[in-house]
Amino acid sequence: MSLIVVGTMAYDAIETPFGKTDKIVGGAALYAAYAASNFVKPINQVSIVGYDFAREEMDELKKRGVNLEGVEIKKDKKSFFWSGKYHMDMNSRDTLITDLNVLLDFNPVLPASYQGSEFLMLGNVSPSLQISVVQQLKQRPRLIAMDTMNFWMDSALDDLKRLLTMVDVLLVNDSEARQLSGEFSLVKAARKILTMGPKYLIIKKGEHGALLFHGDQVFVAPALPLEEVFDPTGAGDTFAGGFIGHLAHTKDISFENMKTAIIVGSAMASFCVEKFGPTRLKEITRADIDARIRQFVDLVNFDIELI
Amino acid sequence: MSLIVVGTMAYDAIETPFGKTDKIVGGAALYAAYAASNFVKPINQVSIVGYDFAREEMDELKKRGVNLEGVEIKKDKKSFFWSGKYHMDMNSRDTLITDLNVLLDFNPVLPASYQGSEFLMLGNVSPSLQISVVQQLKQRPRLIAMDTMNFWMDSALDDLKRLLTMVDVLLVNDSEARQLSGEFSLVKAARKILTMGPKYLIIKKGEHGALLFHGDQVFVAPALPLEEVFDPTGAGDTFAGGFIGHLAHTKDISFENMKTAIIVGSAMASFCVEKFGPTRLKEITRADIDARIRQFVDLVNFDIELI
Repeated sequence: MSLIVVGTMAYDAIETPFGKTDKIVGGAALYAAYAASNFVKPINQVSIVGYDFAREEMDELKKRGVNLEGVEIKKDKKSFFWSGKYHMDMNSRDTLITDLNVLLDFNPVLPASYQGSEFLMLGNVSPSLQISVVQQLKQRPRLIAMDTMNFWMDSALDDLKRLLTMVDVLLVNDSEARQLSGEFSLVKAARKILTMGPKYLIIKKGEHGALLFHGDQVFVAPALPLEEVFDPTGAGDTFAGGFIGHLAHTKDISFENMKTAIIVGSAMASFCVEKFGPTRLKEITRADIDARIRQFVDLVNFDIELI
Repeated sequence: MSLIVVGTMAYDAIETPFGKTDKIVGGAALYAAYAASNFVKPINQVSIVGYDFAREEMDELKKRGVNLEGVEIKKDKKSFFWSGKYHMDMNSRDTLITDLNVLLDFNPVLPASYQGSEFLMLGNVSPSLQISVVQQLKQRPRLIAMDTMNFWMDSALDDLKRLLTMVDVLLVNDSEARQLSGEFSLVKAARKILTMGPKYLIIKKGEHGALLFHGDQVFVAPALPLEEVFDPTGAGDTFAGGFIGHLAHTKDISFENMKTAIIVGSAMASFCVEKFGPTRLKEITRADIDARIRQFVDLVNFDIELI
């Protein structure tokens, strides 16, 4: 039940209406790994970092069952760095700095030990890199999920479209689903995207929850109503990690279990936003996660017998 | 199990990205009555119309069990008229025309036959009129629900605050909840509003569903993902009508049953937006409603045992 997670490991500097942090670890693959490690081991990590990436962070990840053999360490470059500032509604943000640094050299080579992994989570990097990882796998994983972003729709649409034919699950946010499909209605967007390759589409709507589409079936998961979204950075990647972590743990890729996986992802994301960066993800226990998942049951359960 | 519905009955001219209608019946109390009439009879309607209001519409309402004794007909004035244009996202609209007409004379006098009604839905009119209706009732209804809008928060906040201490359930949309509370976080907004009088707060979020708050409990209902929101006019009032109609039908005002009532309201609203004005509400059968409610079960149900 091994899982490969591909994506960035980085440093972020984040400003929200609640505060500011100078430099904190981040990156799609880091958030996904912290989330998924609650459910499945090993996590075969594929990423690249610079000489400045803290050894303590690597040790922490290893302790949680994250295999770092596939994480290249560049001795002469700094880690990818992103800096952004969120607005009051937390749905929009300004990017202040993007220093690609090591990302310019990212050309993942899968370690032999990663072959045979059953689940693959392609975090948001260029579609050509995502394709390269899929092609290096001698045996196709049971399930391939991918994230992407509007930037690649603008700059690498052909590669992206090719990649879509190779995956099972696409995770995007609502505006990305609209851009990719050219449809404003998310139901119409989903129908179109499901003809482009993926059999499952997850549309993330932040504080408004997430939608899962498969054929004519739809599932809606709420986000947990929170007093404060302290820092939304990494919430989508954490969601993805919880989602695929649950699937890899249960080895069940039915639509029914994907619904449950989306609740698990939503629960993990609800922790992520409570503190800066991945801070909260490192604090929580399995008991915290179980209690949070039970909150989701109470949140959406209603008695149809009363009608 | 009688229900009083208070509010406007009007004519609307609506333009959406999908089309345009010249003049179609509308008004909060009309939508609420059409929705509630599927669940409870009689509906004791309190409203005012002009000489131009179609007799056929009155007959249609009567046929559905709506008692019009409390609907004043002004022989020398026209009905309230509103005209608006929706933008692509359907969440924002421009008001083009507001002709108050008979609304300027609205001073509801409750017929004696309405006394003893167990449920009261105060649709969006001025808080002083809403208070007047409550005060005319010799016996307090078992449940009083109210809708309001930002206009009254700007222009009649003292009356509104007084009214809030007299009701059980407040229904507002997200921006109204933020304005009333001065809090951006809806969880914080809810906590504050629940100290202002109502024991239950429903925050309507349009395509993103609705939230129910009561004490420390929260329930989230999704909106049905639709291919097209053809015309959102009246969706909130239809939601309110379905909500209180279900409560009046079941005579059960527990939190558990309010959750179910919110699903019923959401189902009714999902029909409302499918055609212009209340057109779709007049077409549907009880079987359509039951099928739609079952769709909501599928939409949110997940198997916690799988975790």
